[in-house]
Amino acid sequence: MSDILSEVLGANAKFSADFGERGKLAIPPARRFTILTCMDARLDPAKFAGLAEGDAHVIRNAGGRASDDAIRSLVISYKLLGTREFFVIHHTECGMGYFSNEVIRGLLASSLETAELTPQGFRDVGKGGGSRAGEYIEWLTFKEPKQAVLDDVARIRSHPLIPKSIPVYGFIYDVKTGKLVEVEGARTVGAAG
Amino acid sequence: MSDILSEVLGANAKFSADFGERGKLAIPPARRFTILTCMDARLDPAKFAGLAEGDAHVIRNAGGRASDDAIRSLVISYKLLGTREFFVIHHTECGMGYFSNEVIRGLLASSLETAELTPQGFRDVGKGGGSRAGEYIEWLTFKEPKQAVLDDVARIRSHPLIPKSIPVYGFIYDVKTGKLVEVEGARTVGAAG
Repeated sequence: MSDILSEVLGANAKFSADFGERGKLAIPPARRFTILTCMDARLDPAKFAGLAEGDAHVIRNAGGRASDDAIRSLVISYKLLGTREFFVIHHTECGMGYFSNEVIRGLLASSLETAELTPQGFRDVGKGGGSRAGEYIEWLTFKEPKQAVLDDVARIRSHPLIPKSIPVYGFIYDVKTGKLVEVEGARTVGAAG
Repeated sequence: MSDILSEVLGANAKFSADFGERGKLAIPPARRFTILTCMDARLDPAKFAGLAEGDAHVIRNAGGRASDDAIRSLVISYKLLGTREFFVIHHTECGMGYFSNEVIRGLLASSLETAELTPQGFRDVGKGGGSRAGEYIEWLTFKEPKQAVLDDVARIRSHPLIPKSIPVYGFIYDVKTGKLVEVEGARTVGAAG
């Protein structure tokens, strides 16, 4: 067994030994809201937003983008499980600002080994065996963090399956301070349903 | 300001007041692994898998499915940020087992208000104003939880952009006990790179 696998199972055994009343939680989020944020390891949405188990849906992907799959999840969240406010939370120093479609497609075509991050950007260290399948994926990178939040909030706001009554908030989490900073112009207050 | 927004900002102010050394964490996950799991409010992956900030990537969507967007995130995770083990973690009582494409498409076409969950399934309570845009989304529901984990692990395992050297583990988290239970036959050990 890998060290990581045994560490995760060991941590889970301790966690579940004192599970208590959490086993009785209902499916719908008790506080009726949803956070869409980045997969970045430095982010713990439960901690930075003050969530207990059962409180809120949390959707995470590379960049915290309003991808088609995030829209799928947001629609299930409000339509079937009753959430009524959405938070889009990107963060400073996001990896999605350090490459482009062209860069990652080139790196993947070269090899499937992890690239090295140099002051000149990502550099491939692999020895062949790459794949051109990356050409068929839109990687959803961005250059301007605030604009990316505005874009994601706007995409959710204007999606035909998202009711106008749901407010959508846009934030950037500062990985140096742990603070949530609202992006000016992002917030769209819900209209009367 | 909504009650939820002010609660989240209040919790964040307390959290960031004692941020300490976490502001110095690097971008690549220190423990080099990634968890793909469900957005369900009852799940706190950092708690149930023993993650500190900076340890691991966490990808979440409705169902914890290996959607195209999850694949995008997993590829960025290993190729640019050096992770080398993947966990797919679904859970018991997942909402994705309670409806089908046909059901959610019908509910959305009827209205964009939250449906009611009855013993006979979801029932619409809205008064019109629906959208047929749900016809264009594959909702990735499932009937057999173990099979869904096997399918997601298999999809990741066989994707041309995922190296064979990465082990992929498949688990179901029990929301009644907090325990991670491995799905038999899901684990695919990494091949020599």
